[in-house]
Amino acid sequence: MSVSAKASYRLRYGAPVVGEPPAEWTEVLAQQLAHRSVRRYRADGEVSDETLSALIAAAQSAPTSGNLQLWSVVAVREDARRHRLAALAGEQANPIQSSVAQAPLFLVWLADLARARQVTSKTGSATAEGADFVEAALLSFIDVALAAQNASLAAESLGLGTVFVGAIRNKPLEVAAELGLPPNVFPVFGLTVGHPDRLEETAVKPRLPQEAVLHREQYSLDPAHLETYEDVLNGFYAEAGLPEGWAQRVAHRFGSVAGLKGREHLRAALFDRGFQLR
Amino acid sequence: MSVSAKASYRLRYGAPVVGEPPAEWTEVLAQQLAHRSVRRYRADGEVSDETLSALIAAAQSAPTSGNLQLWSVVAVREDARRHRLAALAGEQANPIQSSVAQAPLFLVWLADLARARQVTSKTGSATAEGADFVEAALLSFIDVALAAQNASLAAESLGLGTVFVGAIRNKPLEVAAELGLPPNVFPVFGLTVGHPDRLEETAVKPRLPQEAVLHREQYSLDPAHLETYEDVLNGFYAEAGLPEGWAQRVAHRFGSVAGLKGREHLRAALFDRGFQLR
Repeated sequence: MSVSAKASYRLRYGAPVVGEPPAEWTEVLAQQLAHRSVRRYRADGEVSDETLSALIAAAQSAPTSGNLQLWSVVAVREDARRHRLAALAGEQANPIQSSVAQAPLFLVWLADLARARQVTSKTGSATAEGADFVEAALLSFIDVALAAQNASLAAESLGLGTVFVGAIRNKPLEVAAELGLPPNVFPVFGLTVGHPDRLEETAVKPRLPQEAVLHREQYSLDPAHLETYEDVLNGFYAEAGLPEGWAQRVAHRFGSVAGLKGREHLRAALFDRGFQLR
Repeated sequence: MSVSAKASYRLRYGAPVVGEPPAEWTEVLAQQLAHRSVRRYRADGEVSDETLSALIAAAQSAPTSGNLQLWSVVAVREDARRHRLAALAGEQANPIQSSVAQAPLFLVWLADLARARQVTSKTGSATAEGADFVEAALLSFIDVALAAQNASLAAESLGLGTVFVGAIRNKPLEVAAELGLPPNVFPVFGLTVGHPDRLEETAVKPRLPQEAVLHREQYSLDPAHLETYEDVLNGFYAEAGLPEGWAQRVAHRFGSVAGLKGREHLRAALFDRGFQLR
């Protein structure tokens, strides 16, 4: 077993490490375990069209249910548009504090039922009624997430940094208008892509112990693992000079409707865009 | 530019290839572009606990909104349970024809709002009302897909094969009962993991031209790209001895409610499991 595998586990789970990495370790695993969100980008780094093409090829290589390919992506490079999207995502007007404004490339990932509807109508089918159901929306959400994760990892393998930006869902209809989206296309999340600034200051964030997410044969959660995690994460936060408390952070998000920051209107916005969720 | 990059593009997009791979190519990109769904597994190949641990570590290393980690996974190895799950997914009773029955490991990926609700209640918050909204469900769907894609690619990097199994959503409540899922936990898709049998007979499936999914600054779809794709894919199908027609396949899925194969009840099933989609 390489030192790298053990070190990767230690960073990902903090101490005490639970579980042992396998004897066989790969560059893919090493890249995956080294993931960290990058929110600061170098002002002088561009992302070429060839690199963008590679990220999209990686995304398109992800599995897609029945080869339906229910997603699209808009690559935003123009300064003014990135700044407007940053504002819609509630990021600071000050570009120095905004990942979306800083990064030279902002990818907006779209759940796309429009293309499938168009293709269906070409066959002479009077409707695409199946696309009105929750199942179709879920297929598109899964497809776009699988694709985007491949693109993000591909970017990291090329020395770039990324961060997912769910906050575009704070104002999804305004984002849709900014990007000229047709009906049946919905902006699910953004992904900034650029050259990391001071990556060495960005730590790998410890996750829940494997035992808290991995169940064997049947679901069974021992609450003790959540206590363990609070301790590990509080150590991480203390080192970073951040306030403690995973539970507090989760509760802040879900404890009240206010924590949703406007996303309580997501269902209405989806309906408005043609996702009926029947 | 390496030959491997060009060859990867050619397989992924068929001919004519659109776009050029970047001069810098990585093992991650090579692994991603080589993806193919594996449905046949060697009977003699096991997947060790150490390997399983690595796949889960890869999954947990994926981004997760606000570090909420809204997913879990059940690893199913027992023959009898895999066969029951295969039947629920509508796979052939004959194990030789069923990926789920053949593969030594079946991972069932779960959208998990139960853990976040439990953690929220520990903070003294009277409710976790935010978790009742579509936004919370979407967060969990995105989280679980990002995680599973990392696991799948990690498996491929270790020489294993996988295929996503959305068909567990044909009978989600029965799958939930089989796995002993608590309320607020929903089985989103399965992933078979095992040693590929006759991988060389499994082709990389061409995807849509990049121009059909990648938009610049604003969304703009030229229908000509869909025609191009029909031609590329029909060539692929002809070589594989399969019936032609991407449009027909899409229409088969969405042209009528019958194409959903029971998944028209997904919304009711989600509600039953505690996902209110407000």
